[in-house]
Amino acid sequence: MAHAFRDRAAISGIGATEFSKSSGRSDLSLATEATLAALADAGLDASDVDGIIRCDADLVTHNALAESIGAQSLSWWSTVGPGGVAPPAMVAQAAAAIISGQATTVVVFRSLNGRSGRRYGQGHTSRPAAVGGAGTYDEFFHPYGLLTAGQMFALIAQRHAVEFGTGPEDLAAISLACRERANNNPRAQMYDRPLTEEECLSARMIASPLRLFDFCLETDGACAVVVTSTERAKDGPRPPALIHAAASATGPDVQPGMMFPILTRPSFTTLPSKQCADLLYNRAGLGPADVDVAQFYDCFTITVLIQLEDYGFCEKGEGGAFARSGALGLSGSLPINTGGGHLSEGYIHGMNHVLEGVRQIRGDSTGQVTAAEVSLVTAAPPPGTSAMILVPA
Amino acid sequence: MAHAFRDRAAISGIGATEFSKSSGRSDLSLATEATLAALADAGLDASDVDGIIRCDADLVTHNALAESIGAQSLSWWSTVGPGGVAPPAMVAQAAAAIISGQATTVVVFRSLNGRSGRRYGQGHTSRPAAVGGAGTYDEFFHPYGLLTAGQMFALIAQRHAVEFGTGPEDLAAISLACRERANNNPRAQMYDRPLTEEECLSARMIASPLRLFDFCLETDGACAVVVTSTERAKDGPRPPALIHAAASATGPDVQPGMMFPILTRPSFTTLPSKQCADLLYNRAGLGPADVDVAQFYDCFTITVLIQLEDYGFCEKGEGGAFARSGALGLSGSLPINTGGGHLSEGYIHGMNHVLEGVRQIRGDSTGQVTAAEVSLVTAAPPPGTSAMILVPA
Repeated sequence: MAHAFRDRAAISGIGATEFSKSSGRSDLSLATEATLAALADAGLDASDVDGIIRCDADLVTHNALAESIGAQSLSWWSTVGPGGVAPPAMVAQAAAAIISGQATTVVVFRSLNGRSGRRYGQGHTSRPAAVGGAGTYDEFFHPYGLLTAGQMFALIAQRHAVEFGTGPEDLAAISLACRERANNNPRAQMYDRPLTEEECLSARMIASPLRLFDFCLETDGACAVVVTSTERAKDGPRPPALIHAAASATGPDVQPGMMFPILTRPSFTTLPSKQCADLLYNRAGLGPADVDVAQFYDCFTITVLIQLEDYGFCEKGEGGAFARSGALGLSGSLPINTGGGHLSEGYIHGMNHVLEGVRQIRGDSTGQVTAAEVSLVTAAPPPGTSAMILVPA
Repeated sequence: MAHAFRDRAAISGIGATEFSKSSGRSDLSLATEATLAALADAGLDASDVDGIIRCDADLVTHNALAESIGAQSLSWWSTVGPGGVAPPAMVAQAAAAIISGQATTVVVFRSLNGRSGRRYGQGHTSRPAAVGGAGTYDEFFHPYGLLTAGQMFALIAQRHAVEFGTGPEDLAAISLACRERANNNPRAQMYDRPLTEEECLSARMIASPLRLFDFCLETDGACAVVVTSTERAKDGPRPPALIHAAASATGPDVQPGMMFPILTRPSFTTLPSKQCADLLYNRAGLGPADVDVAQFYDCFTITVLIQLEDYGFCEKGEGGAFARSGALGLSGSLPINTGGGHLSEGYIHGMNHVLEGVRQIRGDSTGQVTAAEVSLVTAAPPPGTSAMILVPA
């Protein structure tokens, strides 16, 4: 029997602002522009909106966005997190609201001045309560200087190197694959700015072994999508991207909002993305061999490398060789991050990956994969994570 | 055609801590006790839990509760608010997760040291970001001294008095109905503590026209429920309370997290509970005449009085006469707040109302309504609100 979820809701509209280093305006202004663009793309307007789902790290509230776009009456609103873990889970929740008859037209958005405002790459000795608060266990890590996600992923990369010999060329292959796609994407912050392996390998070290181009960009911008029933989406002006399956997962010793404790597990070269992949493929009735194109959450290159393994595209420990094989390019077996990803398009905390996943189903990406029919989108792999598979109608 | 939602998920377990003025322990400890009690009541244990839904005003994170109870793997987590608006919406979201196949066993909880910790009745010139932040418009109200929900509802009560002649005896009738139920409920903070109309009318004025007994209690405690599919709930040790329908609503000029701007509407003697009631009854295929027992969110007496009107139990403006008619007692046409409510059982921010709504379906309330089959539970009526109807299997 097909899973209760499968193909019953769809993304019918997408919208984004410019991605920049300094937007010069508020998060709310960015969110509003992206949302109105997504509604127009879906052939709908604000009076149709009865649901809004936000990310816990967003500064824009449901209230502010509803009033700003002119939505008059909501019947679903909630907050999903933490941060970059959320986007596919936010879309999945919109689908759940629609499938269970509790909303008809749900806006899912993410807006941030990630470069000119709060910079996620900088260390914070305290976090906003919305992201964690009690139960994050930061108190066991921050005093020792482990303050940023980059430092944590650096330790994961070191461990992967020890266990499997993963080296800087392996990581660079991921950075380069993303950059090549961005070079052809006018929306990307790294549009038309080529990068070489030599530049990757000689770039300044930030958190060993991760160098500058192993880190994602910092970006001001917003992205939004509109989720409706598949039936309604088919009446819209654009080809719908059906939400075929979605999953969220944590795993032993990994709770949704705990960033650092994953480092205390006996092994941390396998991430909760493994549990998420298993659940996702089971719900989808598909496996890695069926995936035509993937948008992997790429806060860092090592994050992608481990997901290649955890999502079953290669064996554990072979992510580096797989990345260097050319598989990740447009003519490879698994084109990834076809808009440039967080590494080279922009960092909208996972939400630009959702839009790019939709474009692949529509067939209008600047890094279009020919006849793409199974489009995978993932989220930050620890702490908890989420992912989804989009398909055409 | 029956609504997609109807009767497909159920509350199969409930749990609560003691309600006190000083728990002497952490919110997490309270949440853990209530959750483990709810799981035991459902015949389940922590290894069954794959979803946790928290309230945005809770200090306990998903992480902390998952680790504290020993849940090993989550596939659904999210945050619903604001505050007392959330409980039925949290249960509805658990149902959506289950109906759409994304979770099987969802814990919904609320824990607070509402008397010994942060007291909601006291004025705050700033709020935690999780409750609102940008878009609450508090900046237009706080500078003028409008700091608390009590002050806001006092203005609503004044307006209701001007328009409909509602007086202190009308409000006292609600306070007394709740107290009578609490007097028979050993869990209630006001167990065995009788109250007279004379005491109500002569109690100290707090925010005119609201006096001491028009205000709810401040309580330390926690409540939790376990939501599963109806099919699984039927296999549990206790009679399941089926979630027949649920709704959330805002309305023109009222967004989910804005407390005070409702006072700027042309009329504020009708609240978003009217929109919520219309949506709820439509989804339920039922009307007010079908409701056997109701747990109305009762932060203040006036809050209940307006909901009696908005949920259609009497005409607009007649809430006072209806309350004084005896309808709200155990032998009346609409017994309310049968555990004592926030006014006399305790203030767990709407969640103890959910538990009491379940008890009525199980038939084991200390204020049991004979043969209750349609059990209404509501949430704080502004800002946005939510409500649900429970029925037996």
